[in-house]
Amino acid sequence: MFCRLPGGDGRHFMDTVMEQKNRTEPAHGGDIYRNNVSLDFSVNLNPMGIPGPVMDECVRALSELTNYPDHMQQGLREAIASMEGVDADDIICGNGASELIMATVHAFRPAKALITTPCYAGYRYALEAVGAEIREHDLKEPEGFVIDEAVLEEITDDLDIIFLGDPNNPSGRLIDRGLLNRIKEACKVKGICLVMDECFKPLTASGTKAPETGDETVYLRAFTKTLAIPGLRLGYIVCREKAVTDKIRGQLPEWNISVVAQRAGITAAKFAQARSEYMSDSLKLIEEERSYLTEKLTGMGIKVYPSDTSYLLIRSREGLYEKLLERGILIRRCDNFSGLDGSYFRFAIRTHDDNEKLIEAIGEVI
Amino acid sequence: MFCRLPGGDGRHFMDTVMEQKNRTEPAHGGDIYRNNVSLDFSVNLNPMGIPGPVMDECVRALSELTNYPDHMQQGLREAIASMEGVDADDIICGNGASELIMATVHAFRPAKALITTPCYAGYRYALEAVGAEIREHDLKEPEGFVIDEAVLEEITDDLDIIFLGDPNNPSGRLIDRGLLNRIKEACKVKGICLVMDECFKPLTASGTKAPETGDETVYLRAFTKTLAIPGLRLGYIVCREKAVTDKIRGQLPEWNISVVAQRAGITAAKFAQARSEYMSDSLKLIEEERSYLTEKLTGMGIKVYPSDTSYLLIRSREGLYEKLLERGILIRRCDNFSGLDGSYFRFAIRTHDDNEKLIEAIGEVI
Repeated sequence: MFCRLPGGDGRHFMDTVMEQKNRTEPAHGGDIYRNNVSLDFSVNLNPMGIPGPVMDECVRALSELTNYPDHMQQGLREAIASMEGVDADDIICGNGASELIMATVHAFRPAKALITTPCYAGYRYALEAVGAEIREHDLKEPEGFVIDEAVLEEITDDLDIIFLGDPNNPSGRLIDRGLLNRIKEACKVKGICLVMDECFKPLTASGTKAPETGDETVYLRAFTKTLAIPGLRLGYIVCREKAVTDKIRGQLPEWNISVVAQRAGITAAKFAQARSEYMSDSLKLIEEERSYLTEKLTGMGIKVYPSDTSYLLIRSREGLYEKLLERGILIRRCDNFSGLDGSYFRFAIRTHDDNEKLIEAIGEVI
Repeated sequence: MFCRLPGGDGRHFMDTVMEQKNRTEPAHGGDIYRNNVSLDFSVNLNPMGIPGPVMDECVRALSELTNYPDHMQQGLREAIASMEGVDADDIICGNGASELIMATVHAFRPAKALITTPCYAGYRYALEAVGAEIREHDLKEPEGFVIDEAVLEEITDDLDIIFLGDPNNPSGRLIDRGLLNRIKEACKVKGICLVMDECFKPLTASGTKAPETGDETVYLRAFTKTLAIPGLRLGYIVCREKAVTDKIRGQLPEWNISVVAQRAGITAAKFAQARSEYMSDSLKLIEEERSYLTEKLTGMGIKVYPSDTSYLLIRSREGLYEKLLERGILIRRCDNFSGLDGSYFRFAIRTHDDNEKLIEAIGEVI
């Protein structure tokens, strides 16, 4: 069975595809390219910054720009697989996690999808590209937008795909491990593709685990946040099911990882595997600063939602975004997250000096 | 009208997509990653190498890897548009031309496609990803595999898309301008999406032209070959028809161009626009060396097909590839081009010193 546009009827090719109206706008953090920003709290990156060896390898890799990248991504997949405790065939590399989300929907062309609200806009952006019907599971404000057992009732067998953030974005809350196993089981029984976005999971106390053999889940991971290199574009899928990885890989363009990203990615994987103190130091910094920021903001009468990772969702007065931007500080306005309005904001946890500046500025404007 | 996988029937998501059998292997040049290569003639790049200002900008751009790329690619599209003589909205940037070929088939999901044989394998690779039926128009060896008027008979209204290389690959032959206009007209009348791969056209005496308003053709161009930077991954589409560009853009992941490629691409576009002597020097070098190589090889009894660009297709004895590889020289074997067999080889035109080494090595082994 395969969907075909009917050929041979003389229609113009532009008439044969669905019109895409009201497409979700790409959105990550704020817009540093069309604003005057000196401190960017709108993107959530490891406050420890890019590890030196990774940056050094980027510099060295420039000498090989006259070569095509390895289309098999052999060294890169082997290095990531070793770090993740799986086989190289269980790894698909992408030009950022966003490319892998798009390739996954191109591979399975879901008719019906489940996402939570609020969540990262990229799932909707990709699902709209294949015209999927999107069902939203509303997370509750009084529970801090945590994904809880209520999601199980939404996992009905008319679904083709589910995207879940673990931790979710913008709340930063992890999914309970026992609940996660029940979600996985329900998806397996009902034949639903489960995509777990774990891009921020290494920046939580939970960390990531190697999936077991037989686990059909698609785990999205990336170096983007963990090693603070969003400009490089390097994400990957970990999935133990060859039928799934073959299908997703088949929708990716050849040579999708640049020479610089391939080489830096190998160094990054080896670094992350060997230098665990970088990650433990990162976690310690994030936890300390999360407490500091939570205490200060709560003291100012701002509602801070509990987070397990490197960013915080808050509720304050409308206009906070604009007033901070006047001071060169960019945070993430959340009014374009489905389920949130102009009183919600998200910001990254940065170094203590930067966080102090943020607190000082918020104190001045509210 | 839109194709849907039927949801709600309890089938497993892995059963609901077409099995992809015998998928075309990604292939560009040879494999430098799994061979011992000192001279790579298998990829066709400007023998003048990466312009200095472009490389300098790559180095500078590394300092911005902690930023997401501009998802609107504003500066990059404006610079390319200025170089191409079109509007910024007429430009779509891709992570290499290969990403744009894939996005184009994802956008239009053609049921029936026409390609020539032989041609670049990437068209087939992408068309197979959406399960298109592929019709091959055989180019004739006695005519040097040129795309001639015979192609017009193949443009029937059951087609949804046509991919043509101008110049074609591996022959290196341009399409006659008058013929091209008739092809465009036929596609417009019959409602067929025409994709012209012009990635090598700046390295021909013809060069590229700004398409006229009302031209619905999708022109694929890239910095990859012209400025010898395949490792960077930067291609683009020029298309004057907004309905077409909107649809293709909608199938691309967000942030698909890295920070390094964005910044280097801006410099590359400005360089190519302002420093026309780099391109004219490149063309002069290519023409001189093409004559030199053709004369030498013909003198050895090797059949050399006429080429308009920076590579040559030859016919010689089987085994030439292996014997040159033993000497550290990689050329392109053409036995996986549909329509060619193990007696065909393609190689890039490099600098005179390198070309002399190739001639010397071929003289030793045949």
